[in-house]
Amino acid sequence: MLYFQNDYHAGCHAEILRRLDRFSQRDFPGYGQDELCGKAADTIRRLCGREDLAVHFLVGGTQTNLTVIAAALRPYQAVTAAQSGHIHVHETGAVEATGHKVLALPSRDGKVTAAQVEQLMESHQSQEDPAHEVQPKMVYISYPTELGTLYTRQELEALHRVCRQYGLYLFLDGARLGYGLTAKDCDVNLQDLARMCDVFYIGGTKVGAMFGEAVVIANPELAGDFRYMIKRQGGMLAKGWLLGLQFEALLEDGLYFRIAQKANDQADRIRKTLEDGAVPMLVPGSTNQIFPILSDSALKALSQKVLYTDMGPADETHRAIRLCTSWSTGDEAVEELCRLLEAAKK
Amino acid sequence: MLYFQNDYHAGCHAEILRRLDRFSQRDFPGYGQDELCGKAADTIRRLCGREDLAVHFLVGGTQTNLTVIAAALRPYQAVTAAQSGHIHVHETGAVEATGHKVLALPSRDGKVTAAQVEQLMESHQSQEDPAHEVQPKMVYISYPTELGTLYTRQELEALHRVCRQYGLYLFLDGARLGYGLTAKDCDVNLQDLARMCDVFYIGGTKVGAMFGEAVVIANPELAGDFRYMIKRQGGMLAKGWLLGLQFEALLEDGLYFRIAQKANDQADRIRKTLEDGAVPMLVPGSTNQIFPILSDSALKALSQKVLYTDMGPADETHRAIRLCTSWSTGDEAVEELCRLLEAAKK
Amino acid sequence: MLYFQNDYHAGCHAEILRRLDRFSQRDFPGYGQDELCGKAADTIRRLCGREDLAVHFLVGGTQTNLTVIAAALRPYQAVTAAQSGHIHVHETGAVEATGHKVLALPSRDGKVTAAQVEQLMESHQSQEDPAHEVQPKMVYISYPTELGTLYTRQELEALHRVCRQYGLYLFLDGARLGYGLTAKDCDVNLQDLARMCDVFYIGGTKVGAMFGEAVVIANPELAGDFRYMIKRQGGMLAKGWLLGLQFEALLEDGLYFRIAQKANDQADRIRKTLEDGAVPMLVPGSTNQIFPILSDSALKALSQKVLYTDMGPADETHRAIRLCTSWSTGDEAVEELCRLLEAAKK
Amino acid sequence: MLYFQNDYHAGCHAEILRRLDRFSQRDFPGYGQDELCGKAADTIRRLCGREDLAVHFLVGGTQTNLTVIAAALRPYQAVTAAQSGHIHVHETGAVEATGHKVLALPSRDGKVTAAQVEQLMESHQSQEDPAHEVQPKMVYISYPTELGTLYTRQELEALHRVCRQYGLYLFLDGARLGYGLTAKDCDVNLQDLARMCDVFYIGGTKVGAMFGEAVVIANPELAGDFRYMIKRQGGMLAKGWLLGLQFEALLEDGLYFRIAQKANDQADRIRKTLEDGAVPMLVPGSTNQIFPILSDSALKALSQKVLYTDMGPADETHRAIRLCTSWSTGDEAVEELCRLLEAAKK
Repeated sequence: MLYFQNDYHAGCHAEILRRLDRFSQRDFPGYGQDELCGKAADTIRRLCGREDLAVHFLVGGTQTNLTVIAAALRPYQAVTAAQSGHIHVHETGAVEATGHKVLALPSRDGKVTAAQVEQLMESHQSQEDPAHEVQPKMVYISYPTELGTLYTRQELEALHRVCRQYGLYLFLDGARLGYGLTAKDCDVNLQDLARMCDVFYIGGTKVGAMFGEAVVIANPELAGDFRYMIKRQGGMLAKGWLLGLQFEALLEDGLYFRIAQKANDQADRIRKTLEDGAVPMLVPGSTNQIFPILSDSALKALSQKVLYTDMGPADETHRAIRLCTSWSTGDEAVEELCRLLEAAKK
Repeated sequence: MLYFQNDYHAGCHAEILRRLDRFSQRDFPGYGQDELCGKAADTIRRLCGREDLAVHFLVGGTQTNLTVIAAALRPYQAVTAAQSGHIHVHETGAVEATGHKVLALPSRDGKVTAAQVEQLMESHQSQEDPAHEVQPKMVYISYPTELGTLYTRQELEALHRVCRQYGLYLFLDGARLGYGLTAKDCDVNLQDLARMCDVFYIGGTKVGAMFGEAVVIANPELAGDFRYMIKRQGGMLAKGWLLGLQFEALLEDGLYFRIAQKANDQADRIRKTLEDGAVPMLVPGSTNQIFPILSDSALKALSQKVLYTDMGPADETHRAIRLCTSWSTGDEAVEELCRLLEAAKK
Repeated sequence: MLYFQNDYHAGCHAEILRRLDRFSQRDFPGYGQDELCGKAADTIRRLCGREDLAVHFLVGGTQTNLTVIAAALRPYQAVTAAQSGHIHVHETGAVEATGHKVLALPSRDGKVTAAQVEQLMESHQSQEDPAHEVQPKMVYISYPTELGTLYTRQELEALHRVCRQYGLYLFLDGARLGYGLTAKDCDVNLQDLARMCDVFYIGGTKVGAMFGEAVVIANPELAGDFRYMIKRQGGMLAKGWLLGLQFEALLEDGLYFRIAQKANDQADRIRKTLEDGAVPMLVPGSTNQIFPILSDSALKALSQKVLYTDMGPADETHRAIRLCTSWSTGDEAVEELCRLLEAAKK
Repeated sequence: MLYFQNDYHAGCHAEILRRLDRFSQRDFPGYGQDELCGKAADTIRRLCGREDLAVHFLVGGTQTNLTVIAAALRPYQAVTAAQSGHIHVHETGAVEATGHKVLALPSRDGKVTAAQVEQLMESHQSQEDPAHEVQPKMVYISYPTELGTLYTRQELEALHRVCRQYGLYLFLDGARLGYGLTAKDCDVNLQDLARMCDVFYIGGTKVGAMFGEAVVIANPELAGDFRYMIKRQGGMLAKGWLLGLQFEALLEDGLYFRIAQKANDQADRIRKTLEDGAVPMLVPGSTNQIFPILSDSALKALSQKVLYTDMGPADETHRAIRLCTSWSTGDEAVEELCRLLEAAKK
């Protein structure tokens, strides 16, 4: 079978294994207070162009989302997200488990707009007695979104402004950040994110690491006592240096971006094949996720040879699917997939 | 000013005050384990036609909703409700505060349909790995709904069936139950509710009591240790007999239903006036809530003399409002309101 | 039977009923935003000698405790209390239900000492990596304590100082505050409490009201958005004016203190009888709670005529009990109890 | 420096790295539903002698504790533990964060006794109105305990019996299980644990793995929907096969027990040295943790060369410390430590 169902089916980049071999017999202080985490945090600060960022390493995305959100909000405050947002639909109520409502906003392309946020706040604040509703305090966005789309710089600036205006925190889920920042139409970089977001994370699990997400806290209000929160939520890794090691391997010299770029290039080849075959797309895209709409009969054939994610019916005889490339996707797999897609469209 | 903005602006029915006077110098065991609560619970069992119901008295609606839901669900389970459901929009995240997601369903008239519930369950259960989503386990409905509409017996039977089929609990919020059960097009009664719902409550706060909601638990799975839950959530009233006293006063000889019926009749007079004036309605209705759509200029005049609830813009020059009668609404107030509405429409 | 088992077995003071009669047919805005609550809050500010206090009215003690604590603490922070503290032993985990640990301190007399708080903080802060423990942030004390004892002014000042020193909030549970402030050896007043505590409450349920606790927030850090918290925790009473009415009735002209004083005087008579009979006490006291140690045979006789609370075995043939007077205790009941105690000791 | 401060300062056993190299370029299904997890679970079932055990793999101990406890308890239920229990003192309120109280029992040696559990339950159930207290429902024990002590088979049987009698779950934290099961005075095995406990876990993080704890659920009441709970609490590892790989490497042919045994043998050498020097111990022991009491002057010298954990003052001039061997401790380090201890005692 060809693996295109997600971007976390393979282990990790060889460079990480090499370093694991090198360091695995050494002794380290526990819980992320070691030199490898220190170096990786410094590297991230350098890439973000700011010395004052707090950096923490966690194991997985849901853990990161719930810890950041629970750390930022007062009990009666809520986070808003697109209705397709990962925290709203795919985390088994992990945010609600910390006592906070997710306010879902309608969205076709997976993005939240500044206008939506403004309307939400105006609606809340104009209540005669707002205390009967949760108080929106954080905007959660994903970059790329769960539909593979990217916010433009202009859109991010607008979100940043509206958040400032209403005293909201802007939190960017970067589980697939590498694929976003290396997309050909991306017009922001890490330094922009560190300026515009209050907190965001650089995803490792889906971009070359065995596991790991690097949380970058830019707003000092959110930085205090964050390690207490990690521990309280069960997210503190005893051998935290494993996380520092991986992020240093990925970020030290740009490996993270090179492998993400490659995955995007492969996705472009697949998109090209689909376009050439006039296959419609659920949403357009430029990152490692592709959302073609195919006929049930084409899918019946494809599913014999390819693992993909079903996105539901598009009409009575077609379904949208998701195809994912990843840092580990080989060229032969892409070629074989393209051949199968060419055959499928006929 | 004329008070039509809600149904809890007045104190309580005179019969309750009379009984308070009578019992206020007597001594009672605490926490609802007294004879007044016992008698009121017996009365409710009699009205519901079942000896095996567990009955508990709580002070308010949000407290009741969160306690029932938190008692019924396992941590990863969710309650589904109409997007206009009180628990979703007007309880400041009280359900999420207990760790549970509210799954909102689109609805124009405030109702949830059996087909929506079926689709939700099919969608969840057909996931390749459902553990990434909350597990729906309870359906929350209001009777009447927050938009004053009523489920027909047929609709309730369908919800009851679909809940049985998928192992869901059916929970009916009866904060305004009296107004629902005495509406002229109501085709269910307490005995039906006790058969079709796993748990529901008879609202006192909005129907003649100073405060109080009587929870009726029909499904024995939900009845165990419920007093622990009430105490844990801060809802156990030291002088619980105050609740038993009020419900016995209201239910013993049908006072509850008589005063609700009167409020519905008064609402009908107001609806008639609006219909005569060809004023459009946001939703039709037969209970104590009325949702006319009026021009901004008409509202400007009306708001000088009447307290009502704004429901938002209907178009660029009109807004929907809510007018509420209640057990305490006097005939003169209704007449005066009708006069003002007649004037307004012109 | 003689009711001495608690101080909430009777309804409410007649003055409250009088006012209920007067106001029960009037219309009020909901949720505590009415003139009666406004007046009662003003009275409390006047009694406390400070214009800048935030005052909120809640229905019961457990609700008040959990709402105040959850509002004040960040998720990883804890409240410390005597091991006999109400929040630790008699609230069914209501504080833990909001996600916070109660750190219990050993205590024989129900009090927390400044030295204990200092030791707790030094122990926490001297950890190599304190993030593995909850962070103490609030000190919870009761006045009088659950054992009827009173902090001296000196003890309160010491607690106040140590809290300031370590950045802790001092929270005083005043469920029985009236009995404390009118005890003959009390050397503090409301103005002292408003200066020394960050937040405290004036208990109504046990001192003449039907129900109600008046929360006084002196530290502005804790005041923001408190109504959101009340609503989120299910504690917002629709007819909030019922609470304002009661506190105004009790506090306006000192009724609260007069009826509490009377209960203390009656307790003193009972204590005198016990002392005359050389009955040992579990703890000494000057408020409405009395803790004699009686033989099993004496208790066998007493329990036929008196309701009291068992406090457990003192030795193999004796048990400690609690006798409570209250604002509603009549002189005849006290005389009868004294006669029975005199007989019992023989 | 010599590392004796904990048993998780080194990476992992070489066999795990070998397997990582072998599997890291392969593709696996996500979230623990892969063949490596399947094989490791089968191995655990074989070692436990039961086909019907549910086995799940989590990343760390605190995550495991909170997930198991939150999955097992109803909201108002509590877990009881020794006052030195990890969940009570070293998890930053992670259990309380899920809404449950930890009921601490006094203990000198880190153990809970059946008699304590019985007394707790009798005390709770004999309350006149037990709903005012949390309901104990689970007993948490550690094997070995946080003080390195071991329950005898007889003690475990007694706990098992008392739990059955009162309907409590018995949960055994096996973060250091390998060191316990290979101690020379251990008289239980995995099959005994699977029979006596409702749920327990086999710790990997401290016994040769990079990370990982294998949860074994013996009571089918606790097994349902456990993956929902893992996801909800943020503990589901995307590349779950990393956990299966490690446990299979450790358990397949007994490596886990061999390396734990070696660490115990080394600890015995250290204990022998201390005994020869007549150094008193805080608690006796036979596992990899050693708790000598040394003079402040001896410690001043020792701390220049050895990392250890301070356990607090024993008297005015002595402190207890903890020395830990681990699977990674080399013989030279042990010899050097023994030399230093011999010098220290003089």
